[in-house]
Amino acid sequence: MTVNNENSTPLSDPHLNDVLPVSPKLVEEIVCALDQLNKEQVDFLLRPLHSADIADVFEQINDNHRKLLTSLIGSRMEPDVLSELDDSTLDDVITEMDDKDVARAVSQMESDDAVHVLEDMDENEQRKIIDALPDKDRLIVKEGLSYPEDSAGRLLQKNLVSVPGLWTVGAVIDYFLIEENLPDEFYEVFIVDPMHHPIGTAALNKIVRSDRDKKISEIMEKEPTLVRVDTDQEEVAYLFRQYDLTSMGVVDDGGRLIGVITFDDVVDVIEEEAEEDLMLMSGIQETDITESVFVASKNRVTWLIVNLGTAILASMVIAMFDATINEMVALAVLMPIVASMGGNAGTQTMTVTVRAIATRELTATNMKRIIFREFSIALLNGVIIAILIGGLSWVWFDNTLLGLVMGVAMIVNMIMAGLAGILIPITLDKVNIDPALASSIFVTTITDVIGFFAFLGLASQVLI
Amino acid sequence: MTVNNENSTPLSDPHLNDVLPVSPKLVEEIVCALDQLNKEQVDFLLRPLHSADIADVFEQINDNHRKLLTSLIGSRMEPDVLSELDDSTLDDVITEMDDKDVARAVSQMESDDAVHVLEDMDENEQRKIIDALPDKDRLIVKEGLSYPEDSAGRLLQKNLVSVPGLWTVGAVIDYFLIEENLPDEFYEVFIVDPMHHPIGTAALNKIVRSDRDKKISEIMEKEPTLVRVDTDQEEVAYLFRQYDLTSMGVVDDGGRLIGVITFDDVVDVIEEEAEEDLMLMSGIQETDITESVFVASKNRVTWLIVNLGTAILASMVIAMFDATINEMVALAVLMPIVASMGGNAGTQTMTVTVRAIATRELTATNMKRIIFREFSIALLNGVIIAILIGGLSWVWFDNTLLGLVMGVAMIVNMIMAGLAGILIPITLDKVNIDPALASSIFVTTITDVIGFFAFLGLASQVLI
Repeated sequence: MTVNNENSTPLSDPHLNDVLPVSPKLVEEIVCALDQLNKEQVDFLLRPLHSADIADVFEQINDNHRKLLTSLIGSRMEPDVLSELDDSTLDDVITEMDDKDVARAVSQMESDDAVHVLEDMDENEQRKIIDALPDKDRLIVKEGLSYPEDSAGRLLQKNLVSVPGLWTVGAVIDYFLIEENLPDEFYEVFIVDPMHHPIGTAALNKIVRSDRDKKISEIMEKEPTLVRVDTDQEEVAYLFRQYDLTSMGVVDDGGRLIGVITFDDVVDVIEEEAEEDLMLMSGIQETDITESVFVASKNRVTWLIVNLGTAILASMVIAMFDATINEMVALAVLMPIVASMGGNAGTQTMTVTVRAIATRELTATNMKRIIFREFSIALLNGVIIAILIGGLSWVWFDNTLLGLVMGVAMIVNMIMAGLAGILIPITLDKVNIDPALASSIFVTTITDVIGFFAFLGLASQVLI
Repeated sequence: MTVNNENSTPLSDPHLNDVLPVSPKLVEEIVCALDQLNKEQVDFLLRPLHSADIADVFEQINDNHRKLLTSLIGSRMEPDVLSELDDSTLDDVITEMDDKDVARAVSQMESDDAVHVLEDMDENEQRKIIDALPDKDRLIVKEGLSYPEDSAGRLLQKNLVSVPGLWTVGAVIDYFLIEENLPDEFYEVFIVDPMHHPIGTAALNKIVRSDRDKKISEIMEKEPTLVRVDTDQEEVAYLFRQYDLTSMGVVDDGGRLIGVITFDDVVDVIEEEAEEDLMLMSGIQETDITESVFVASKNRVTWLIVNLGTAILASMVIAMFDATINEMVALAVLMPIVASMGGNAGTQTMTVTVRAIATRELTATNMKRIIFREFSIALLNGVIIAILIGGLSWVWFDNTLLGLVMGVAMIVNMIMAGLAGILIPITLDKVNIDPALASSIFVTTITDVIGFFAFLGLASQVLI
């Protein structure tokens, strides 16, 4: 994992006739040209870049330079640059662009990209852009936006290649040559019945390897993987990954083919979903890095306040034993260790469980086995850590009984942590709460409260 | 995020002529048939399944049933089932299979899958399988294994489609029809010079839309994205995602085309990399869920022991102030709150930073700005939390000064947590240590030590 470094990648190798990624030096030169309002120099620097790289430039420069760059190239903005921008940069750029220019760019996009660009705008802005679109595009975009967020409907591209099963391979290949309105990229052809129900798919690389005289229905894959338009994007991503798909048909309630989802949109979903779990577990929005200080601060502080609640709960447990601590201050020294180790062990189990649920490795079939497995691991590691810290406490405070109390409290807390780490995400998932979002709050509360209670409670009985 | 539930997905919809995923009920039926050693029933249940789904069945059943299933279908094992298995299940299955059967399956795979199946075997096993391969396959597999782990060389498939630039589109299409040794799937054609240096690529969907008389060099993309064989797979995944590639050429040191990487291999890498960060940050191996209790326990306990060290360090700070705590037990009640809130805030910043480094959103260009941004967020949230908990402490213990000490300690710790959360991952990345692996240990140590020190130190000066 290295920060983009132009010298460490083969891309800068002169022997490889290659696209240059966005180097810090290049961004600096662009910023410098922007400061001098040198339009020609900006154009010269951007010209060799792929639209995805130009989007990166927009994301990396600060607000002022972003405004300057938008005002310079906004009227000639490549549609692909807009669709590659992250949400908050896109918002900045579109606000700065002329509505007509945005509408022109949007009308040149495939429908999935157009919907992606429009979906997060505020309503007024969105209406203005949609009104400025040509009639045909307006209908398609409105249809896309009518599907639920994070559903297949938002990812689908209306434009696809479909042919009747009676056509020969030769006829299909001739159709490619004469039909002008084919998608920019496509990887397979859908074979449909007269009602436009998909009955099969044929990959391009199968078509070009087949005799011109064969019927397309003879070479097609007869059980195409399809999803309904309201399917969750996570489900879509799972199917793409499971079956190594390049594209997938989307059907309406009547089973008619209404669009296609291509792998490039799903690659983004796959990374987002895995990243989302990581972010949610730490109480951050996925878009955090691109948000302003105030928005990010507001989003993060909610999580911190909830955690403050659990920390106060743990403190109240300690307060119950203030007399005990007063008699033996060593307890105050050692008690955070019990809670902290429980927290770490609980987080380990919880992370494994959250991901196993997301990737469907944890199912009703193996659930009992995996719960027992986590219990066993917790018991084993609890004993190991208990021996280490029990022994150390004994030596440190020269008190055998204190070492014993520490060890027993540690085993109790580690087992509870393991059980909480697996049972809480499973339970949350059952009641349809995202386990990545809420698990860690519950797990930490349990490990803190039980950790302090087991240690101080045992100490008050045995030691005082 | 739902555990696979056959009724909640459109896949079970009878109107969709679709592949059934692996439902718990199906697995149960397979297990039942295995227990009865009913070979016909097992075959009947597995027959309609995609090889990726059969692999899921192997992963979900327990060790004994896995052995039974392998002994039943091992001699007819589909190569694709093996290449879809996770590492530890693959290990189980291969150990149980006859070496000759493994060699037969491996020799039918594309080279990237063959290398994937062989790379994690123990050396003896690997040698036996390689020796049993046909000569041609043996050389290719050995070459694949000679590349560094996690490099482009391990992902590449030797079999690709390359043609000279002088050929016409018609000649290329005719070549598809007569050449028998084309890859199972391909999405583009490489155009090479006589030395086999790639000079361009042409997507299949461009070729089929072009006149047969045109030269292929006229319609090709002139700047193909290429990587050298020793490029890290993370770099490869970045390029696929950035440029929405279906496949990418791999060249040797001399710039000659030696293989192709396809998007399906990279989708796995993309998910693995994002998941790896999540797992590493909690001190777990990515393969944890599939490992035995003892292996998982061993892997996790290392992390716990390191964390035990940091917890003990924090305890030693508390021990420095035992006289202070003895005089005012409220300090023992409140001190875990300071450490816990610092830990949470530090983890938020750290998670954002680790992902921003991995996805290259954090670069030399915007580093200063992002560090300042994190400092601002930490200050803002520190003040908010300080007011809340400072006020609460004041009321709880009816002690204004205690509330003030709590508030100031909280601000100090939250700011330090924010700075640690961003500076530690950046520094680790600079010295080539994976920030996902080591950051949280350092961040927790700093927030614990500084939290206790700030709070108890201040209290000992002001309150006692």
